[in-house]
Amino acid sequence: MKTLLLNKEQVSSLICMSEVIGTVEEAYRAFNSKQVVQPGYIGIHLPPPRGEIDFKLGYCKANEMISMKASSGGFIDNPESHGVPNGMGTILLFDAQSCALICVMDGSLITGLRTGASGAVSVKALARKDAKKITSIGTGNQARMQIRAIKEIMKIEVIHAWDNNADTLARYKADIESEFGIPVVMAASKKEAVEQADILITTTRGKGTLVEAEWVKPGTHIVAIGTDQQGKQELDPEIFRNAKIVNDSIGQCTEKGETWHPLNRNIISQEDIHGEIGEILLGIKPGRENEDEITIFDSTGMAIQDNTTATRIYRNAVEGKVGTFFEFIE
Amino acid sequence: MKTLLLNKEQVSSLICMSEVIGTVEEAYRAFNSKQVVQPGYIGIHLPPPRGEIDFKLGYCKANEMISMKASSGGFIDNPESHGVPNGMGTILLFDAQSCALICVMDGSLITGLRTGASGAVSVKALARKDAKKITSIGTGNQARMQIRAIKEIMKIEVIHAWDNNADTLARYKADIESEFGIPVVMAASKKEAVEQADILITTTRGKGTLVEAEWVKPGTHIVAIGTDQQGKQELDPEIFRNAKIVNDSIGQCTEKGETWHPLNRNIISQEDIHGEIGEILLGIKPGRENEDEITIFDSTGMAIQDNTTATRIYRNAVEGKVGTFFEFIE
Repeated sequence: MKTLLLNKEQVSSLICMSEVIGTVEEAYRAFNSKQVVQPGYIGIHLPPPRGEIDFKLGYCKANEMISMKASSGGFIDNPESHGVPNGMGTILLFDAQSCALICVMDGSLITGLRTGASGAVSVKALARKDAKKITSIGTGNQARMQIRAIKEIMKIEVIHAWDNNADTLARYKADIESEFGIPVVMAASKKEAVEQADILITTTRGKGTLVEAEWVKPGTHIVAIGTDQQGKQELDPEIFRNAKIVNDSIGQCTEKGETWHPLNRNIISQEDIHGEIGEILLGIKPGRENEDEITIFDSTGMAIQDNTTATRIYRNAVEGKVGTFFEFIE
Repeated sequence: MKTLLLNKEQVSSLICMSEVIGTVEEAYRAFNSKQVVQPGYIGIHLPPPRGEIDFKLGYCKANEMISMKASSGGFIDNPESHGVPNGMGTILLFDAQSCALICVMDGSLITGLRTGASGAVSVKALARKDAKKITSIGTGNQARMQIRAIKEIMKIEVIHAWDNNADTLARYKADIESEFGIPVVMAASKKEAVEQADILITTTRGKGTLVEAEWVKPGTHIVAIGTDQQGKQELDPEIFRNAKIVNDSIGQCTEKGETWHPLNRNIISQEDIHGEIGEILLGIKPGRENEDEITIFDSTGMAIQDNTTATRIYRNAVEGKVGTFFEFIE
């Protein structure tokens, strides 16, 4: 039995963002076609200054692969004390026909890539066709990744960006302008930035309301990325009152996503959630229905996105003869 | 960052049973010293003729290692259709200081080894000092593993063995006699076998009472291995009524071990459980207190046994310069 080993550089070279957009769509469609088994994830929290490590498991019947992603984060002393990043990842792929371990790959990059792609998938399904202006609340790595993905599927005319750290904001502007040639306006206030948005992306991992309901103009599509755990929040729950609410997984979003907040405040009930993104991709439910509605995509991230993306990377590696084989059993 | 890769043959060569007995004792002591974090395991069941794959996670504060064992079983068509065993395993070890992946090893052997060792640990703590005769109900791989472990810690004079399959029983006799030089009596009935026992081992994974209460003579120590899931059973629950009941984990045994059955029938209450094996090893609770009591050790298996055993294998490999390093990240 041969197991393919792929390091971080190989993983990076084996997939491009347009492919990840495809694998994330594949994941969402499989999820809403009853082709997915995703047990609740398990994790271990270490005492500070250490962080946590989570294990996420997904089985996709469409590709007959089982994936397990171990991902750590928040080990702030790692670079200095141990010479390794503050978060790392490993993905195992098992052939679901035999449960043979067919691949062990570095998993540092996949979470960022597939989360970026999720925003782009939602833009295709829910943003206005004439959308040109993006507002980015938060300007860290995932904010960049969102742009890297969305520029694959539309022409971005300008980005209005805001961050509470002026240096981070200036670096974002410099990076985006040099890497993608998209002009970035550094907003003086969140309000000013939000009012410009055709598409509003929040990636701050904030812990309270950052975006007020009255700032959001009709027709805006909101990509809510930062809230994937209880205790995190980015949007004024009032934004949900009259919006078209789409979740990646209703189970996850109502428990620990941005959608939890308006539910908790009784601003909406579960019936007010329009549906899951996979239902829109499958044509079971409509996407945007007019130019004026505010749409919200709440993305908490699913193991099955790792599964379909890692499977594509594995297949590309086999096809391109990239990687090293190791025999764990003969 | 370097990750050590160990294949099945290397794992096998890197640890001996007497060391596993030590690592299992270490695990039990850590468990009862609040040094262990073991989230509930997650698994995926595939449709027949496929089996299941489970993921078990353990963090041991005593050795600062986090282990994840993926183990599959029940893929009955694997040898013929895929050329691989019907069950396989993989263990990841993470340094809990940084969560760096320090080792990926084949995990096919560890479950069998540490389960065998658990019986021997219980024999040391609970069997009569003059015990000489073992009765084995069930004569498969784990039945052999129990003998391999117990012979490390006592002199076995004779084994009375029973199996509902005569061929399996005959092969067990031949194997045990040639490998260990211990005479095996093939019992004509379970009753005949059980009545001979100083130590009674059940490893059948049966689904009903195999051992009647009236057959068990005073002073017997019972090693109950086969029941680790709801629906499995080997012992007449009446055996528990006046026995000293010891669990590996009370949480697990009362939910899915042999101990669940007498609880469910109100033959015992939770207070009748003497304690956990780690409490005996730590001296918090007594082991056997007289020559006449019947003692039962209910072993459901814990992730932390994989953790301490895999850690020892890893340390032996590093010391002996065995294995192959791979850099998943530079």
